[in-house]
Amino acid sequence: MPAISSKGRRMPASPIRKLVPFAEAARRRGVEVLHLNIGQPDIRTPEVALEAIRHLDRTVIEYSHSAGFESYRKGLAAYYSWHGMAVTHEQIIVTNGGSEALLFGMMACFEPGDEIIIPEPYYANYNSFALAADVKVVPVRSTIREGFALPAIAAFEALITPRTKGILICNPGNPTGYLYSRAELETLRTIVLKHDLFLFADEVYREFCYDGATHTSALSLEGLDQHVVLVDSVSKRYSMCGARVGAFITRNTELLATVLKFAQARLSPPTFGQIASEAALRTPQAYFQEVVGEYRERRDILVDGLNAIPGVTCPKPKGAFYCVAELPIDDADAFCQWLLESFSHQGRTVMMAPCSGFYADPATGRRQVRLAYVLHKEKLAQAVECLRLALDSYPGRTAG
Amino acid sequence: MPAISSKGRRMPASPIRKLVPFAEAARRRGVEVLHLNIGQPDIRTPEVALEAIRHLDRTVIEYSHSAGFESYRKGLAAYYSWHGMAVTHEQIIVTNGGSEALLFGMMACFEPGDEIIIPEPYYANYNSFALAADVKVVPVRSTIREGFALPAIAAFEALITPRTKGILICNPGNPTGYLYSRAELETLRTIVLKHDLFLFADEVYREFCYDGATHTSALSLEGLDQHVVLVDSVSKRYSMCGARVGAFITRNTELLATVLKFAQARLSPPTFGQIASEAALRTPQAYFQEVVGEYRERRDILVDGLNAIPGVTCPKPKGAFYCVAELPIDDADAFCQWLLESFSHQGRTVMMAPCSGFYADPATGRRQVRLAYVLHKEKLAQAVECLRLALDSYPGRTAG
Repeated sequence: MPAISSKGRRMPASPIRKLVPFAEAARRRGVEVLHLNIGQPDIRTPEVALEAIRHLDRTVIEYSHSAGFESYRKGLAAYYSWHGMAVTHEQIIVTNGGSEALLFGMMACFEPGDEIIIPEPYYANYNSFALAADVKVVPVRSTIREGFALPAIAAFEALITPRTKGILICNPGNPTGYLYSRAELETLRTIVLKHDLFLFADEVYREFCYDGATHTSALSLEGLDQHVVLVDSVSKRYSMCGARVGAFITRNTELLATVLKFAQARLSPPTFGQIASEAALRTPQAYFQEVVGEYRERRDILVDGLNAIPGVTCPKPKGAFYCVAELPIDDADAFCQWLLESFSHQGRTVMMAPCSGFYADPATGRRQVRLAYVLHKEKLAQAVECLRLALDSYPGRTAG
Repeated sequence: MPAISSKGRRMPASPIRKLVPFAEAARRRGVEVLHLNIGQPDIRTPEVALEAIRHLDRTVIEYSHSAGFESYRKGLAAYYSWHGMAVTHEQIIVTNGGSEALLFGMMACFEPGDEIIIPEPYYANYNSFALAADVKVVPVRSTIREGFALPAIAAFEALITPRTKGILICNPGNPTGYLYSRAELETLRTIVLKHDLFLFADEVYREFCYDGATHTSALSLEGLDQHVVLVDSVSKRYSMCGARVGAFITRNTELLATVLKFAQARLSPPTFGQIASEAALRTPQAYFQEVVGEYRERRDILVDGLNAIPGVTCPKPKGAFYCVAELPIDDADAFCQWLLESFSHQGRTVMMAPCSGFYADPATGRRQVRLAYVLHKEKLAQAVECLRLALDSYPGRTAG
């Protein structure tokens, strides 16, 4: 039989996938699995988006423009302007989720073997898109001791080589929830200009900022029109992950024209998802106030609860709906599996994402887990209690 | 500013795009443009699919499984079995249109620099996916004189090198409408087995066969379980191009596992599109009988009309809804532009796709155009009349 490609063999499998059979086995034993492992919110999709779908009045579901419906792009441009990011609809290409925007951007910006620096821990699928585009990911370490703040300029400069062509940030971050300050973004601006790099900013969690913190977009940085690529998505904003509607945004006209050619090859982004997304632009502000309030309360229950467990460290993030905790354990992959295989309390256990997949060197995240607060508060309190008791009885417990 | 990638610079722009401004200018002059240039049918999407969307009862639009909803894949497996292609739902990965299935398949099967043989003329976007996957397209010439039949084994063998890893066919074909016979598929089977190649079969026009001809799927070939990759899509079958739902299908378990990793990286195919596609599986057979009857009548009006014009040759295709015609002209790109810029008859003109984009060497298709019969019969008759008169007055007319 013909051989699979080396790219196919190297494509990473999700570390969470390895746990799925254990979660299924736990459920078969009658154990309730509290899912803190996934980025799928339980928040309702805005009614205005669902209503637009229910009132569909088309009789032929046609391709849209390869860059997306012009009316939707105009609506998006108004949304960005409202958020202090001045862009026109011609600077927006609607994509199949943020994922496709990342893939197109990497293919359009980087030669095979070019390097992109990404603060780690970082979203595991960045590795997959980089591999697909033959780009080398160079991690720059952010640490839990410093709450996952942006590494110093010197740390970036130590990694820059003649092949370095970009920096990628996720702001607020998955998996850390860290929200970069304007000062940190200005630091990035300095590096990007000095070394003539592309700055990819994945800002899909923009709406989810807490404690009065405000989000600074890379698009608002001065003098970076030719450098900044914004990756966006409706998935988290409107709890509409299945719509598969994202956006590639830049003011660099040559880059736009190039990405449009990739977009034309795949014909168009999804029509139904765009109808829902365009309608979702009319989501009342009250929806976000309610959702952000809910997430903040969940964060406090989870993060305060975790920090009250002896030996556990968890910086309190100001954004997104994730946090990373360091646990007094030997190995997070083993612990997460043990939780599903060998532990339950009052018929419940917890599923989390081991952080090994979020670091270039899996050993770095050996004692860390990512927790997503996408469950009701009561369930989160149960999850914290489960974890507290589990850490008491886990055979691989360390001093912390 | 940082440079665009060489891949980005080499990504081909659609040859039809160059004509779009001329079509817009014609419309501004009040000329009706008859669009024979596109693959967007005017046929109604089945009501059962639209109704499923209008009756959406979800409150959170979640990700689906990365391989697609299991219920949809089970329904698809039944559909394929009904069409004589025995596959299980585990052998199906639902994709963002057929486009994504092609891209994933090429990335999973081929090393950079590997070669894939494609009978030409072929769908222009194959070049784009091959470029994205760093695969070299090697065309094998099919000719209008032979009605675009599969080239002889010897023609394939003359092109096979140590880097040849696959053959890609579109059956029935875009742009030719050619429907391969079982004997032709057996020929391909021989070559594929002898040289241990992957056989990619793009069968998205399966339903559209005329004159009693039946479609033979590559999946029905004996002994090719490890070799065949089927690319499918709901776009044309249900006139639902905007749903962006396709499928990657193979019985090769290692290849399935590999493509699933690519699918996991981009999270999931579109939820709304899958809901519509799953419902569309209940489309009554009468819908297809009516649509196929309509397309056949359109084909006859268009192809018979073209062949009645002196100097025009157009083989009558048995499938899809395209045909390729050779015209008595100097250059099809120039002629198509001239039609939009300088010609009209009774306030109408015709837009067609020059075939230069469907050949590896654009010069090969210099006198050929692709016409899609996606318009009402009356409009098609008007288009033929336009073309007849246009050829009489076109300055670049040749003896034919």
